Amino acid sequence: MLKIGLLGAGRIGTVHAKTISSHPGSTLVVVSDVNMDAAGNLAAQYGAEARSTEAILGDAAIDAVLIATSTDTHSDLIERATAAGKAVLCEKPVDLSLARAQACLKAVAGKTVMIGFNRRFDPNFAAVKAAADRGEIGKTELLSVTSFDPAPPPVSYIKVSGGLFRDMMIHDFDMAMWLMGAVPEKVTAVGSSIVDPAIGAAGDVDTAVVTLHFAGGRIAVIRNSRRAVYGYDQRLELLGSEGLLSAGNMIENTVSKATLAGVISAKPEFFFLERYMRAYAAEWTAFVEAVKHRGSCAGDARGRG
Amino acid sequence: MLKIGLLGAGRIGTVHAKTISSHPGSTLVVVSDVNMDAAGNLAAQYGAEARSTEAILGDAAIDAVLIATSTDTHSDLIERATAAGKAVLCEKPVDLSLARAQACLKAVAGKTVMIGFNRRFDPNFAAVKAAADRGEIGKTELLSVTSFDPAPPPVSYIKVSGGLFRDMMIHDFDMAMWLMGAVPEKVTAVGSSIVDPAIGAAGDVDTAVVTLHFAGGRIAVIRNSRRAVYGYDQRLELLGSEGLLSAGNMIENTVSKATLAGVISAKPEFFFLERYMRAYAAEWTAFVEAVKHRGSCAGDARGRG
Amino acid sequence: MLKIGLLGAGRIGTVHAKTISSHPGSTLVVVSDVNMDAAGNLAAQYGAEARSTEAILGDAAIDAVLIATSTDTHSDLIERATAAGKAVLCEKPVDLSLARAQACLKAVAGKTVMIGFNRRFDPNFAAVKAAADRGEIGKTELLSVTSFDPAPPPVSYIKVSGGLFRDMMIHDFDMAMWLMGAVPEKVTAVGSSIVDPAIGAAGDVDTAVVTLHFAGGRIAVIRNSRRAVYGYDQRLELLGSEGLLSAGNMIENTVSKATLAGVISAKPEFFFLERYMRAYAAEWTAFVEAVKHRGSCAGDARGRG
Amino acid sequence: MLKIGLLGAGRIGTVHAKTISSHPGSTLVVVSDVNMDAAGNLAAQYGAEARSTEAILGDAAIDAVLIATSTDTHSDLIERATAAGKAVLCEKPVDLSLARAQACLKAVAGKTVMIGFNRRFDPNFAAVKAAADRGEIGKTELLSVTSFDPAPPPVSYIKVSGGLFRDMMIHDFDMAMWLMGAVPEKVTAVGSSIVDPAIGAAGDVDTAVVTLHFAGGRIAVIRNSRRAVYGYDQRLELLGSEGLLSAGNMIENTVSKATLAGVISAKPEFFFLERYMRAYAAEWTAFVEAVKHRGSCAGDARGRG
Repeated sequence: MLKIGLLGAGRIGTVHAKTISSHPGSTLVVVSDVNMDAAGNLAAQYGAEARSTEAILGDAAIDAVLIATSTDTHSDLIERATAAGKAVLCEKPVDLSLARAQACLKAVAGKTVMIGFNRRFDPNFAAVKAAADRGEIGKTELLSVTSFDPAPPPVSYIKVSGGLFRDMMIHDFDMAMWLMGAVPEKVTAVGSSIVDPAIGAAGDVDTAVVTLHFAGGRIAVIRNSRRAVYGYDQRLELLGSEGLLSAGNMIENTVSKATLAGVISAKPEFFFLERYMRAYAAEWTAFVEAVKHRGSCAGDARGRG
Repeated sequence: MLKIGLLGAGRIGTVHAKTISSHPGSTLVVVSDVNMDAAGNLAAQYGAEARSTEAILGDAAIDAVLIATSTDTHSDLIERATAAGKAVLCEKPVDLSLARAQACLKAVAGKTVMIGFNRRFDPNFAAVKAAADRGEIGKTELLSVTSFDPAPPPVSYIKVSGGLFRDMMIHDFDMAMWLMGAVPEKVTAVGSSIVDPAIGAAGDVDTAVVTLHFAGGRIAVIRNSRRAVYGYDQRLELLGSEGLLSAGNMIENTVSKATLAGVISAKPEFFFLERYMRAYAAEWTAFVEAVKHRGSCAGDARGRG
Repeated sequence: MLKIGLLGAGRIGTVHAKTISSHPGSTLVVVSDVNMDAAGNLAAQYGAEARSTEAILGDAAIDAVLIATSTDTHSDLIERATAAGKAVLCEKPVDLSLARAQACLKAVAGKTVMIGFNRRFDPNFAAVKAAADRGEIGKTELLSVTSFDPAPPPVSYIKVSGGLFRDMMIHDFDMAMWLMGAVPEKVTAVGSSIVDPAIGAAGDVDTAVVTLHFAGGRIAVIRNSRRAVYGYDQRLELLGSEGLLSAGNMIENTVSKATLAGVISAKPEFFFLERYMRAYAAEWTAFVEAVKHRGSCAGDARGRG
Repeated sequence: MLKIGLLGAGRIGTVHAKTISSHPGSTLVVVSDVNMDAAGNLAAQYGAEARSTEAILGDAAIDAVLIATSTDTHSDLIERATAAGKAVLCEKPVDLSLARAQACLKAVAGKTVMIGFNRRFDPNFAAVKAAADRGEIGKTELLSVTSFDPAPPPVSYIKVSGGLFRDMMIHDFDMAMWLMGAVPEKVTAVGSSIVDPAIGAAGDVDTAVVTLHFAGGRIAVIRNSRRAVYGYDQRLELLGSEGLLSAGNMIENTVSKATLAGVISAKPEFFFLERYMRAYAAEWTAFVEAVKHRGSCAGDARGRG
């Protein structure tokens, strides 16, 4: 049974606390947060304790930590935790500075570190990957990733997030490299702020299309929008020499209603907590397996880690 | 080039006039109707002449007639036309009297007579039949036919139509016998008038479920309603030992709209002229082929004729 | 926190043990089974104890029992448990004897007893019910329930199950009465054994169509087969004066693959544990609420109990 | 009744001959082709005559010509025909030289000239346009056009076609400008030859992604591939501030088959003749209307012309 320390008791930390506790191979032992009340409340729900991050990293009984703190603390915490002998699952991104992220990668060489790219564990996307890897559509040629949020975040969040490309499209970059099994050679990007002028005023875009050009001429195109009022739109299509694989949205229910006005059916699951609920659990399972088998889960665009 | 006489210039006669004229192997030569103006107008559109039914049947140059007159004239016209050496395609039903229909069947033995069960020629239903005949779902066990009209006809029509079973479900009986390749041994029927009380007052039902029990225990169930406000609902499902074949509605277009209110898509094609447009053309082609090859197109539940 | 005793540690008992333990308002305290090892193993997984049924019913600290034992024990256990002051959630059926079931109903008058008709709690069917109750399709007229199992059970099970109507279609009878908000006045049934001759030899059918005729002429039709090789086929359609509500299958994933061979997509969730996983949790929540508020959950075709 | 001369009796000319003849407001009078036999055969099918292009343009009885000749003759024929007082419907493209196309545009100012961008007349795409114009998804922000051919043309065709952008994506550029109601300000293009190396050797690409940037920050992205083995893949999606409009493929039939292997359904209609059959008829109707009302059908990105 892995003993887990959770760093960060916010929204995503709360999701992970449940996942850690529900897994038969892990137990949530301790939680830290800059807000000690938040840490205490979350810990209490799972029979864990609230302690300082320092205390957690210094406790030899803790096998692994899950880092769900604010972005600016990620690279430091990854390095400190690995130095303390802990396996690490850290939420994306590693750092808003590329140089800092690269330094971190170097520092953790040989350690068990996994970054929380949960979408690889979505059952739908994983089925596409598996089918492509089995050669079911021949040689892969053109990937399209659609990723629209239901509503833009507050501008205060935009300002610290690193912007659409590092905060939101980072997941789609991961999907593209994972599905294409390669790192792109060329990138073109088009973006604009048409959803919310305040986002543009903050120096960010809210609508963007990026194309990735891979060796051999294969192409991926990513579409992002901060607003799709009908729900969280998460789809992908992979065209190959022998066919097309598509993964659609998971919808709220299977009910349709036919009336004079047309045939109306349910919307996509609202947002990431609903849509990727199963992905978080599968991600955690993969991490537990990696820790058990001392594998590495980071830095490899070619597979699950 | 087959020379065709059309008996009846009403709604369905008008559909057939176009189909006859568009076919490369047939030409519309002459039209009759109790309303000579209607016959004249329709004939004029296709460069044909209006003449009396008697004249048409007596004209040796006419190869075949299409009977699209009122129901009470069908059995007589079938017998007169075949006696005059014409091949016949006649709209359903043969007669509201079972005895009269059976007498007619006897009278036309050996002649080329086809009854207008157009649904066998719908590309969707035909694809189900072909797949089942190829054994793609193993042994067929349970058939379900859904057939809902968009709106009930006027009660004046109900009164002369022969009622729901002989006017509307007759198509579904044909589908069931054609798809199951057999005639049922037992029938149970449940019906009620809940759509329009005036239909009940006229002695008919507007909603009905009929089960057909075939030799060996295979079952078909037919659902009819005179009202499906969202359009003409024409579907079927065939369960076999190795799978399920389903034929869905043809819809008005492939557009969907996702908004806060849900995802809305198009309705089924409105009614039989839209839905079965291609079926009418395929039916006519089958008739032309049958005439050319002196085949018989009636009285056989096991195939297309 | 409700203290729960679980009677029966078989397949369905195992499902309930997890649901009881995951619910924030209930805790699994004790488990019994005719096989004491099975009871012990299941209890151990949830920090509960294994004891005899007698001991459980005699323990004043137990608030409620979940009866998941073999069918022939249900009516007795319901009566003993309610007499001992426990709230009861019992798996269907109450008894294979109608007279015994009616006697049991009389014996528990005024007590909190719920029978495990879990499908009412399926999010898809519940959405249909809610929409119909809101009048979204006007007056309901014709209900169709499709319920096909993926594969027939062993004949040994058939022999003790009470047969297709009492074991399998009982769920669909519940759905029909719940959705139509009424008890039928007339029933017609057609059945045959075409899936497995051994089922017929055991005196049961494996394929059946039943129509229910409600007051005012409304109709429901239920289709059952013990074999749909593509998975657990659980759908319903409700036609009303202003539209049609349909609930479809939940499918394994949203992936489709288009190749020369056609477009292939995932099958329905395999069987009831997968399909109705969420329904079991929602059912348990409803029971916990009913116990808290001393409601009755049985014997009412008109609502959730 | 408009009297029509058809210039070009190849594949697309044959399609138009049928459409012209079927329309109640037009009649095919005369056909020309560099291959006089081809012209003669096609003319004979519709009771028309074969004559030289010169003779057709010089015949005052001809109201309009449809130009379906090889690309390199388009701009000259458009100018000669309009100079001779004929209304013109010409297949795309006007010319492979931009300068020549612009000169042609200038030369035909005030004349009735329509270029054959038939996709605007596809009922599905037209429904998207109509819904967007009615404001059903608010302000339009991000358009995606998917256009994959089922199989690449022979390299001999590639060499004279002008290449993927001028031969194939030209339709999608038209769709984008029509749907967005504007001309883009910036264009980025990524392309490669991965379907067939011979296409690359001929200097063309077979897979491409193009983004169009419109004033105000609106974006369109177009995906093209010369090979989608499952059929002609023609879809579009338009994201707006209040929702998403999607137009899907038209499929061969509505049949699906569920077996152990999954659920298999029909492929998209194979190629443009099948998919856009109705679009060609609607296009011709629009042209006939324009000629009758002396409208202009070219050079306007903002509507049907």
